[in-house]
Amino acid sequence: MKPVERLTDIETPVGYVDLERVRRNAARAAEYCGAHGLGWRPHIKTHKSRTVAALQLEHGASGLTVATLREAEVMADLTDDLLLAYPPVGRAKLDRLLSLPGHLDLKVGLDSVDVLSDLAGAAEAAGRTVGVLVEMDAGMGRVGLTTPEAVVGLAQATQEMAGVRFRGLMFYPGHVRMPAGEQSGALADVAARLDGVLSALAAEGLRPEIVSGGSTPTLWRSHEIAGVTEVRPGSCIYYDREGLDLGVASEGDLAYTVLATVVSTSVPGQAVVDAGSKALAKEDRGGGGFGILLDRPEVVVRSLSEEHGVLDLASTDWKPAVGERVRIVPNHVCVSVNLQDSLLVKDGDVHGMMPLEARGRGPWNP
Amino acid sequence: MKPVERLTDIETPVGYVDLERVRRNAARAAEYCGAHGLGWRPHIKTHKSRTVAALQLEHGASGLTVATLREAEVMADLTDDLLLAYPPVGRAKLDRLLSLPGHLDLKVGLDSVDVLSDLAGAAEAAGRTVGVLVEMDAGMGRVGLTTPEAVVGLAQATQEMAGVRFRGLMFYPGHVRMPAGEQSGALADVAARLDGVLSALAAEGLRPEIVSGGSTPTLWRSHEIAGVTEVRPGSCIYYDREGLDLGVASEGDLAYTVLATVVSTSVPGQAVVDAGSKALAKEDRGGGGFGILLDRPEVVVRSLSEEHGVLDLASTDWKPAVGERVRIVPNHVCVSVNLQDSLLVKDGDVHGMMPLEARGRGPWNP
Repeated sequence: MKPVERLTDIETPVGYVDLERVRRNAARAAEYCGAHGLGWRPHIKTHKSRTVAALQLEHGASGLTVATLREAEVMADLTDDLLLAYPPVGRAKLDRLLSLPGHLDLKVGLDSVDVLSDLAGAAEAAGRTVGVLVEMDAGMGRVGLTTPEAVVGLAQATQEMAGVRFRGLMFYPGHVRMPAGEQSGALADVAARLDGVLSALAAEGLRPEIVSGGSTPTLWRSHEIAGVTEVRPGSCIYYDREGLDLGVASEGDLAYTVLATVVSTSVPGQAVVDAGSKALAKEDRGGGGFGILLDRPEVVVRSLSEEHGVLDLASTDWKPAVGERVRIVPNHVCVSVNLQDSLLVKDGDVHGMMPLEARGRGPWNP
Repeated sequence: MKPVERLTDIETPVGYVDLERVRRNAARAAEYCGAHGLGWRPHIKTHKSRTVAALQLEHGASGLTVATLREAEVMADLTDDLLLAYPPVGRAKLDRLLSLPGHLDLKVGLDSVDVLSDLAGAAEAAGRTVGVLVEMDAGMGRVGLTTPEAVVGLAQATQEMAGVRFRGLMFYPGHVRMPAGEQSGALADVAARLDGVLSALAAEGLRPEIVSGGSTPTLWRSHEIAGVTEVRPGSCIYYDREGLDLGVASEGDLAYTVLATVVSTSVPGQAVVDAGSKALAKEDRGGGGFGILLDRPEVVVRSLSEEHGVLDLASTDWKPAVGERVRIVPNHVCVSVNLQDSLLVKDGDVHGMMPLEARGRGPWNP
């Protein structure tokens, strides 16, 4: 971390991380997974930081999950166990994938024979064997094979090809937005789909060594899905307003905010800050508006322009002045982090700047 | 431009600019402004590119508009006439502002005496005089003073301070979403508000040399707002799906798309591409979904995850295959450009990569 002498020297808007809360969030995820015999393979797309990934591994993460080749390159020397949870399509991406260090137990999630055969051919030519997790649709309807027969077919195809090895299954229950107790039907449906796939695989003598599932909204109930061996939650390292609204996190868990400055109070009933859609992301997540203030959760970011965030003062007695600083909890932390150049980090009384090495798409040249 | 030998070597997702269309869009804006005696001061927040800013100046732009200090630093040597259309709040931003090259006729838009007095004090200490455009609210209700009296008061305060000079007015009619013919009432209301402010200023002997207005949705009708001397449209250099929906642009004007690759067709009725909310931005602009295909506008990007875009195939006969490439017109071009590392540019038959020098927030060190 590059140290910061005076907090007032920091320009806004800037993403702001509380490292003590990050450690607590990591410990809690590790503890939950340990208690239920699950591997914890955090998705680093949320934080894109080598510092935070190393912290997750220190707290017991069994490996890392990435979505892009850049993320894979940046994280490759921190772990022996890397999952690219995204199909690598095209020569350029395959070349980057197969140039990753040889020490890695490298796995790729995919859902088509097109991607599989290109990967197998390229891996064989490179003298490598890449693990394959066949992706199944757990009901979200985004990617993943939609029938047990299709999953079995792709698993068998994997077994027949050189350059690849069938390691197991992957799914993402991104449609289940559940906190404690609710939507048990949706979770039971995920479990039933997985059970059907596992039975169909077993009937063909296929035993997935890895069954990778999980998300932050379903995190604390991952153990209810029989057969899952590991989870890949991302945002639970920082949390966000959505996690708060879903009851997955409480206010004391919020480890990421955007530090912003009031720049205008000219229109009555509102204050305008310098964090707009280019710092918070204008993502509607169903909660109304685009974020809330950490210290005044009754104040909602009502609207966003690119460099303007409009705070609604209707429900507060607070009278902000131009120049005053606020901390905003964004609706969706992953996309806000991705908009930052680097992050301001607080560790106890010490402040510093933390790079986001895995941001962007090009090859990483450290 | 760094040349690109083979287009298939380019990894997706990547923003993709057609420079011939950019030139045509620039020429049309310049022609319209010239025909109506208006200055054209494009807002470079849309493109964040020195190449495109230089092209706008070659086509007759009278100066440039920026929103951030980084944008100002990057553009400072391309023009003599720069407007920071955003209040610089805090010591760090004032220091950067006053470190801009001395050749610049520098102007700042602001709406409070707090910002004004800090700016004046810092400018005087730096031995500079900075021009001030007092921002008025034209009905959008975001920033800007809401009464003629308040505008007169801030203009008079400017005249009384060393370090600053009253140069005129600024407003942004961002609430008027009009193409040809429609919403004439909203435009007339903007004109009436401006007229009220100009009359109040005149009554105090204040004559604004600059009256800066305009937006892309109202661009072609800027001349209907009496008293405006210049416009600051941004997105009309590239356009986007919103511009198309509003009728401000036609399909042949769309100069920016996101090149993406189909990565999954496992779920019937849809195809998934590798451009998600981290390439397109998940901004609802009222058109349904988050973008359309350039060559198949009947195909809508129905939903976005961070690295997944789901194309709805309900209204097309097209049967995409994994590996196929598409060009997506995002809902809002400015926020999509801001998500790219650099852009793929097509100029006739030649392709190259174009940097986005003004992306990010830190000081620009060329």
